[in-house]
Amino acid sequence: MAVGGDPDIVFDFLPAPNGTAIDPNFFTFTGMRVLIEEDPSPTFKVLKASMAEFPALLGQSVSYAVLEFPVGSVNPPHTHPRSAELLFLLGGTLEVGFVDTTNKLYTQTLQAGDLFVFPKGLVHYQYNVDPQDSSFAISAFGSANAGTVSVPASVFTTGIDDGILAKSFKTDVATIQAIKAGLAPKA
Amino acid sequence: MAVGGDPDIVFDFLPAPNGTAIDPNFFTFTGMRVLIEEDPSPTFKVLKASMAEFPALLGQSVSYAVLEFPVGSVNPPHTHPRSAELLFLLGGTLEVGFVDTTNKLYTQTLQAGDLFVFPKGLVHYQYNVDPQDSSFAISAFGSANAGTVSVPASVFTTGIDDGILAKSFKTDVATIQAIKAGLAPKA
Amino acid sequence: MAVGGDPDIVFDFLPAPNGTAIDPNFFTFTGMRVLIEEDPSPTFKVLKASMAEFPALLGQSVSYAVLEFPVGSVNPPHTHPRSAELLFLLGGTLEVGFVDTTNKLYTQTLQAGDLFVFPKGLVHYQYNVDPQDSSFAISAFGSANAGTVSVPASVFTTGIDDGILAKSFKTDVATIQAIKAGLAPKA
Amino acid sequence: MAVGGDPDIVFDFLPAPNGTAIDPNFFTFTGMRVLIEEDPSPTFKVLKASMAEFPALLGQSVSYAVLEFPVGSVNPPHTHPRSAELLFLLGGTLEVGFVDTTNKLYTQTLQAGDLFVFPKGLVHYQYNVDPQDSSFAISAFGSANAGTVSVPASVFTTGIDDGILAKSFKTDVATIQAIKAGLAPKA
Amino acid sequence: MAVGGDPDIVFDFLPAPNGTAIDPNFFTFTGMRVLIEEDPSPTFKVLKASMAEFPALLGQSVSYAVLEFPVGSVNPPHTHPRSAELLFLLGGTLEVGFVDTTNKLYTQTLQAGDLFVFPKGLVHYQYNVDPQDSSFAISAFGSANAGTVSVPASVFTTGIDDGILAKSFKTDVATIQAIKAGLAPKA
Amino acid sequence: MAVGGDPDIVFDFLPAPNGTAIDPNFFTFTGMRVLIEEDPSPTFKVLKASMAEFPALLGQSVSYAVLEFPVGSVNPPHTHPRSAELLFLLGGTLEVGFVDTTNKLYTQTLQAGDLFVFPKGLVHYQYNVDPQDSSFAISAFGSANAGTVSVPASVFTTGIDDGILAKSFKTDVATIQAIKAGLAPKA
Repeated sequence: MAVGGDPDIVFDFLPAPNGTAIDPNFFTFTGMRVLIEEDPSPTFKVLKASMAEFPALLGQSVSYAVLEFPVGSVNPPHTHPRSAELLFLLGGTLEVGFVDTTNKLYTQTLQAGDLFVFPKGLVHYQYNVDPQDSSFAISAFGSANAGTVSVPASVFTTGIDDGILAKSFKTDVATIQAIKAGLAPKA
Repeated sequence: MAVGGDPDIVFDFLPAPNGTAIDPNFFTFTGMRVLIEEDPSPTFKVLKASMAEFPALLGQSVSYAVLEFPVGSVNPPHTHPRSAELLFLLGGTLEVGFVDTTNKLYTQTLQAGDLFVFPKGLVHYQYNVDPQDSSFAISAFGSANAGTVSVPASVFTTGIDDGILAKSFKTDVATIQAIKAGLAPKA
Repeated sequence: MAVGGDPDIVFDFLPAPNGTAIDPNFFTFTGMRVLIEEDPSPTFKVLKASMAEFPALLGQSVSYAVLEFPVGSVNPPHTHPRSAELLFLLGGTLEVGFVDTTNKLYTQTLQAGDLFVFPKGLVHYQYNVDPQDSSFAISAFGSANAGTVSVPASVFTTGIDDGILAKSFKTDVATIQAIKAGLAPKA
Repeated sequence: MAVGGDPDIVFDFLPAPNGTAIDPNFFTFTGMRVLIEEDPSPTFKVLKASMAEFPALLGQSVSYAVLEFPVGSVNPPHTHPRSAELLFLLGGTLEVGFVDTTNKLYTQTLQAGDLFVFPKGLVHYQYNVDPQDSSFAISAFGSANAGTVSVPASVFTTGIDDGILAKSFKTDVATIQAIKAGLAPKA
Repeated sequence: MAVGGDPDIVFDFLPAPNGTAIDPNFFTFTGMRVLIEEDPSPTFKVLKASMAEFPALLGQSVSYAVLEFPVGSVNPPHTHPRSAELLFLLGGTLEVGFVDTTNKLYTQTLQAGDLFVFPKGLVHYQYNVDPQDSSFAISAFGSANAGTVSVPASVFTTGIDDGILAKSFKTDVATIQAIKAGLAPKA
Repeated sequence: MAVGGDPDIVFDFLPAPNGTAIDPNFFTFTGMRVLIEEDPSPTFKVLKASMAEFPALLGQSVSYAVLEFPVGSVNPPHTHPRSAELLFLLGGTLEVGFVDTTNKLYTQTLQAGDLFVFPKGLVHYQYNVDPQDSSFAISAFGSANAGTVSVPASVFTTGIDDGILAKSFKTDVATIQAIKAGLAPKA
């Protein structure tokens, strides 16, 4: 059997406490309290606790994201370059899927309490098809900074030439421009 | 700045699908549904989703544990040999603490919605001091098999010689035997 | 500054030669001779030497792909889940680009002899805009199996539901179906 | 079979010699000469050569500790968060043991010349039961900074609340306080 | 089967773009254009694109070297401490060989289009035995800084004592001095 | 500062004890007792405890070698492909040296009790210049199988063509043949 090991840093934590005051607040993140204090988001929303928001995670190879899915909302196809994602559905139901590097699609319908693992670096999506209930999930990553590459955003909103995209998707420039218009930020 | 990287396997997932049928159920774990279907545990309880329970995690470097803390319950001092722990308190309050390799103790009182990171390999504990409300937390690990070394269980229930323990804890054999008796499984 | 190290195996090579005959042919790959023996491809073509084609690469953390770009051809947006790509343009010119996880696009026009590095896991493309000359490149990967996730193929040819894609790309189902039709294999 | 690889840095050694004078003394550690020049310690004693004492080890993933065991002395239960320990008994005899994560105890009696490996992150101890002869061992670690978590010190001398410890060890507060008193530094 | 994984950094690329301008030229290396613009080297020559020449490779775990072999030239026995080498022979023919840690020699005669992998850290050489045609190869490494330890240079040109070398090679000091003289830089 | 991390396996030890009996002897190595029971070697001798001799080391990333240096003996220039070496001189004196990848030589004279680190993958040697006293050292490696590439043996005793070696060392074939003869096993 082969395994993917989990590496160490050579300190208890980073930055190494060279005379600087490190107190328990350094290891605490309160940025998720808004989930309890505020109303659910009316649109799909991701709230992250990665090393950008929570610096103590640097070197600890773990992070979280919380995902809110109002009725009918989707988390568009995307990849995480630096980690698998282990999704835990805490409320509602969720359609999920990923595509491996042989272009095989794996889909599943999750109910509350279910977990699903999206292997590292593969395209995946989630969709709350339920007409009445919102869904709520928490996802863990085996990296302090898993990163997200959203397919719609990275391909159609960053300025890649229309002609290159038309050839890539075997369509015409007009179709590419229509998709770009739909994804563009609204004035 | 130095970081601890997160390694890859050289396949999308393991075991490699050499002609064997891999279907979406392989990537799905339903063992946490009991949390929704059953009453809360009357004693401290850990429910795990690591590679032992969920084989698709092998090679994906991530796993979960769910922690239930009835009023006044404690998760005794322990370490995880292969990962940091990123605890997310979903309900109640929780006293937490860890000790680094210089024997400095870091403690914190968490409220619902808070996260706390226990760095890799260090002794830590959690305690629900609240007299009325139970607590509920989910913990993520950056390893498919973080492992747990419980200090009371590994030191006092595995048969280590009384004399060695008495010398180690600078106490007498009678005290060691009293602790062992308290921790022994009840008939 | 922090770096990503390159790990070892604990053998000279894999599989370990436990009494089995390992001869120099095991370390030799002749599958690229077709590049010299045959005419250039009339369409964009990738020829790979990864551990699937060349088993001796297992455990050596390196592999190649050769890229042939006829006039006007494109390598559509894609990612490699397990490695950066270091492209060496041996002939012709090439438009290249990648998008980082903040959705910033980096583009460049390469001439023969130039190298360009596409960081690990990020969306990138290559395009031979020249009206007269084909282009020819070799790409190295720091993994025996970098893997390829083609955006058009993985998102639009694997059976992801039309409605999910329409919501994801903020367009209508008809547009999604038009793109799928263009990318579908021709009868 | 699966293995845990040994990673590289991307330099010959660290810090990289950017114009700074690096001479052979940087790679030499003389802090163990006291073992030869001085009398053996009357109590259990550890002398370390890790990256704190010997900075050239940074990035080289190896370090040493020398262990002196007078008659009847014990190295109390502890873990090393970042490495296995490979003990080489150079003189005397030694009782050793470790506990795996299933709480199985492995014990052995070593004679001079024997080696014993304590797997990474697991609780282990050593004890010189011999009534007449001291023991002397050298231990190697596959990390420049293996770290040590002493169970008695980290659990009972760092200020963890008495009530939490009493619940954890299923004993009363008086017993915890007695153990703490025994382990406290003497005035 | 066991594999050697390829680790991540926790950023898209290094240095992290903290407000500093990172433009596409950072990811582009033009130092190989001389291969096209200039005449072939009359002696064996290596042109490298590693992180010293191309800083964007730091953290991306891949690099290149281009090897020019005039008629009858040799690349003397050497090792790369931090990577396997995957040689791609683009022109001519080449005799290659490596020695594993059991001192078994593997040799091969390559023709244009062939690839050969030299496993990590092992002694290897290349030789253009052809009396008429030069050879030309490109080599990929799974490290941003594979490093090169040339046996003749490191052993016989760095000042290692003649007596130590004579004993090591079981020869006399005069022979060692003759070899040193041949390898010394010419006035 | 950058570091080279030390990776984990995802088990306590390998092979995983799937129902098979693992007892303390598995973790014990008695092959070094000969050092105590027998007379010192009359020639330079290495006694190893790596995963070949001691299978429990697999996955624990640490191993040992014991080095005996009679008067005037040398450990010829060599490299370890998979680990740095941390030498601890237990008796006698020792001349040591290594050469970095810029061909800079670092030499040192060690006395009993001194440690010296030979960075990973670099050519190094040891020599007991003392006319009266033998030397004795123990070396630790941060790999279960560091491997050894002896320069004299791998270059001159494995059958590499005389002409290639003559060109490589800028000498004549007769000199190469003289060196080969000296290193050849005696009838």
